[in-house]
Amino acid sequence: MSTSVLDMSVSLDGYIADPDDFLGGDDGERLHKWADADGESGGLAAVAVQFQDEWTAAGAVLVGRRTAELMDHWGGDHGGLPIFVPSHRPPGPAARWGYPLVTYVLDGIESAMAQAKAAAGEKDVQVRGAYTAQRALEAGVLDEIQVHQIPVLLGAGRRLFDVLPSQIELEILRVIDTPEATHIRYRVRR
Amino acid sequence: MSTSVLDMSVSLDGYIADPDDFLGGDDGERLHKWADADGESGGLAAVAVQFQDEWTAAGAVLVGRRTAELMDHWGGDHGGLPIFVPSHRPPGPAARWGYPLVTYVLDGIESAMAQAKAAAGEKDVQVRGAYTAQRALEAGVLDEIQVHQIPVLLGAGRRLFDVLPSQIELEILRVIDTPEATHIRYRVRR
Repeated sequence: MSTSVLDMSVSLDGYIADPDDFLGGDDGERLHKWADADGESGGLAAVAVQFQDEWTAAGAVLVGRRTAELMDHWGGDHGGLPIFVPSHRPPGPAARWGYPLVTYVLDGIESAMAQAKAAAGEKDVQVRGAYTAQRALEAGVLDEIQVHQIPVLLGAGRRLFDVLPSQIELEILRVIDTPEATHIRYRVRR
Repeated sequence: MSTSVLDMSVSLDGYIADPDDFLGGDDGERLHKWADADGESGGLAAVAVQFQDEWTAAGAVLVGRRTAELMDHWGGDHGGLPIFVPSHRPPGPAARWGYPLVTYVLDGIESAMAQAKAAAGEKDVQVRGAYTAQRALEAGVLDEIQVHQIPVLLGAGRRLFDVLPSQIELEILRVIDTPEATHIRYRVRR
């Protein structure tokens, strides 16, 4: 069974990005520093290697259109994974003709997730983009939330969670405690 | 040296209370269930006993006017501790004449905190109320933040953190991982 996972670095005050920035923090990178915190080798921090293994084990990506277009669909290649974009509008030219791994799904997020899970097989579906993650939560098709909670108050920006129509219970699956971040993985209860 | 501490139970989506409620969650108590999670004795959960020891070790309370008035100043007695209320307006009749332990401070939050710390001696100052905590953060007089992060998305409500004028770095002092909550204590960096 495929599991759909939202993986996000978030400040203590709930922001995932600057107001005007695609990334997070004064320097545009504050929220993502934890992943390259290994001063000795200059490479990934040990905990980031573990998460990278989880990221690369995914079998498909479900991504919101805003994020997909901001990233130009990763040039059509997100680690060779099939990419599903739920949207109300048909794709632009590049995604329509240039990117064989990119599929726009126009009949709802449930359908998009079903197609992503089918493509992922036994592997995870990576969910990208806060708006799309919230729609997936509302539709009951988001299975897990991996939060990297960063010890910073950004003060303003784009929030991971805005307003949801109802209360949703979670279950804590795992907490990894490092000086750079508190990594908490939740299962969405249904 | 006295340390000022904000201690708050907060949902993963950053809410500390329902939109219309002084408390948090559908039943008004969801965010505070972790503290009485001990099904066997019906008493406090073990981790809550530890936090209760920290709470009762405080030497003074600094509380926002809204919270203070909602709680009727705890009838004038918050565990026998002196209570300081920063406000722009003089206190109402009860606080002015009926509650000798309650002091309204009209010349700013820095002054209120200085008076609270002087009264607390070597003990902590408990900071109550999200609005007042944010003003204390902005003024540079909040030392630590103890968050009890609850595995629930409330979906709406009053947030612990709204908008702050600048980015503030924190340091993770301690993480306590239980099934009912992730208890994270931060030091505010200055």
